[in-house]
Amino acid sequence: MKSAASIAKAIAEVQQSHHIPDILPFKMLIECVPNVSEGRRSEVIAAMAEAIRGVPGVRLLDHSSDPSHNRSVFTLVGDSAGVEQAVLTLFERATADIDLRTHRGEHPRLGAVDVVPFIPIEGVTMADCVALAKRVGAEVAARFGVPIYLYEEASTNAARRHLEDIRRGEFEGLAAKMATADWAPDFGPAAPHPSAGASVIGARMPLVAYNINLATNRLDVAKKIAAAIRHSSGGFRYVKAAGFMLEDRGIVQVSMNLTNYEKTPIFRVFETVKREAERYGVSILESEIVGLVPAAALNAAAEFYLQIGGFKPEQILENKLRT
Amino acid sequence: MKSAASIAKAIAEVQQSHHIPDILPFKMLIECVPNVSEGRRSEVIAAMAEAIRGVPGVRLLDHSSDPSHNRSVFTLVGDSAGVEQAVLTLFERATADIDLRTHRGEHPRLGAVDVVPFIPIEGVTMADCVALAKRVGAEVAARFGVPIYLYEEASTNAARRHLEDIRRGEFEGLAAKMATADWAPDFGPAAPHPSAGASVIGARMPLVAYNINLATNRLDVAKKIAAAIRHSSGGFRYVKAAGFMLEDRGIVQVSMNLTNYEKTPIFRVFETVKREAERYGVSILESEIVGLVPAAALNAAAEFYLQIGGFKPEQILENKLRT
Repeated sequence: MKSAASIAKAIAEVQQSHHIPDILPFKMLIECVPNVSEGRRSEVIAAMAEAIRGVPGVRLLDHSSDPSHNRSVFTLVGDSAGVEQAVLTLFERATADIDLRTHRGEHPRLGAVDVVPFIPIEGVTMADCVALAKRVGAEVAARFGVPIYLYEEASTNAARRHLEDIRRGEFEGLAAKMATADWAPDFGPAAPHPSAGASVIGARMPLVAYNINLATNRLDVAKKIAAAIRHSSGGFRYVKAAGFMLEDRGIVQVSMNLTNYEKTPIFRVFETVKREAERYGVSILESEIVGLVPAAALNAAAEFYLQIGGFKPEQILENKLRT
Repeated sequence: MKSAASIAKAIAEVQQSHHIPDILPFKMLIECVPNVSEGRRSEVIAAMAEAIRGVPGVRLLDHSSDPSHNRSVFTLVGDSAGVEQAVLTLFERATADIDLRTHRGEHPRLGAVDVVPFIPIEGVTMADCVALAKRVGAEVAARFGVPIYLYEEASTNAARRHLEDIRRGEFEGLAAKMATADWAPDFGPAAPHPSAGASVIGARMPLVAYNINLATNRLDVAKKIAAAIRHSSGGFRYVKAAGFMLEDRGIVQVSMNLTNYEKTPIFRVFETVKREAERYGVSILESEIVGLVPAAALNAAAEFYLQIGGFKPEQILENKLRT
């Protein structure tokens, strides 16, 4: 066995050598998730994907189409100039190929390019993404004659902050809605584009789809907990939640979307659900993250539970490799 | 207020769209931290850094020199071929420029290039790094006539697994040590290189330097907890620990090196320290990570505390961007 003194010396030596050498700024990364009103004609969808892939500084991570919704979602990342160019290119193709007057589908929609959120991931602030949304909105309106509504963080009007409020009435009700005083667009003409309608452009935080499974089959417990934590009924500001039965497993689930993981972090939601469940004698079986999650959202949980003080993202080895 | 049903529908829609599209393999990343017996002649050190920087597929993240130790540490990352080439280049320069017969310094050393660990970071296994250590060891021995000892995970002999055992006696005692039956090298000649001695090459996990500060000034509590958790006195296998007084703050610290965060994870060490401290009526003030930490070490803590089931590293947004 080594002496405690020699162990102490060895630890001190290693920790002294563990300084962080040079802190470089992160590369800028913006995510952009345009929703387009075409989910059936594969050649039209493929042409839009090709157009995005051709833009320098942009990576198309994914695209998926839903024929019954008649809608496609593209997920791309890049720097500010790259995602701006990709969105303009997408508008060029979509306004040429899509006609809302003959478009039918289950999903509500207002325009050919229906919604375009810009999402800060790394080396970029929400303010940068808001500025980008306004710049792109003005450019789209000028170049394609499509009226633009700014939404979420880019919104300039509390009554028009949420997508569902802007989209209410859909393309078919748009001309009448735009004729009212409250619905002059943020950019572009005061009437819909004949075939491309109007578009909603804005900035928002990355969304975390998060579920907590409870060790019970009591659906009422899941529903009560969902009501306790969701914003609409008095809970956390950035939580949407509902209780579900998972029939095949005989357990219930609190299913959530966390719309701002910085202001309403995962660990606080988890601890609150755990505490509320205790009140009914129920424990948490497990939680699950559906799809993608920003690294910062998980790191915040590690920092919280381990009580890590003064931690900097630059201390994560992989982050240094990406600078 | 929205109805619970409309919230449930909105959540289900978002979560359905949150599938992970295409899972690509990670890029291969190996960290390599050669320690060289020269910490005073800046032109010699600069030439070694330049030589490493000139190797394609390799990034020199950091290098630092300690004149009293007369030793420099280089931190580089790259793929297998890149780090292999960088190490060979470094041996070429070090064997030309360093003569152990006239080298003096506080730090123990055996050779011009003293120690070379290969560390798996991403898209590469420990077995890959062991194979790489053996390949590089054989190549160095053949090309430069330097005897090589394999250490840690690459070790072929339990008595020669740890650096301190191999290095005991230092360069000055090496010729006599190598003349004994137990100390034939893994590769190369059975006697030291006249000026460059011998080198230790191997593979190990990334080391996490981790401290926990206690809300007390009782040094005996920190020392007792350190003894409880460290391997040498019966604790966790991959923990080195010592208790220290932080004089300026009037508190004590359990200072640790975690030598394998996969097998002895941070959260388990934290929870054990917390529990042991409770026994003395002491609580944890905060913990701190010194220097760099692999993302996986923090993610494991998030998974543990949030009870996340079935999580895959590919779900972290930034990981997808790096594929």
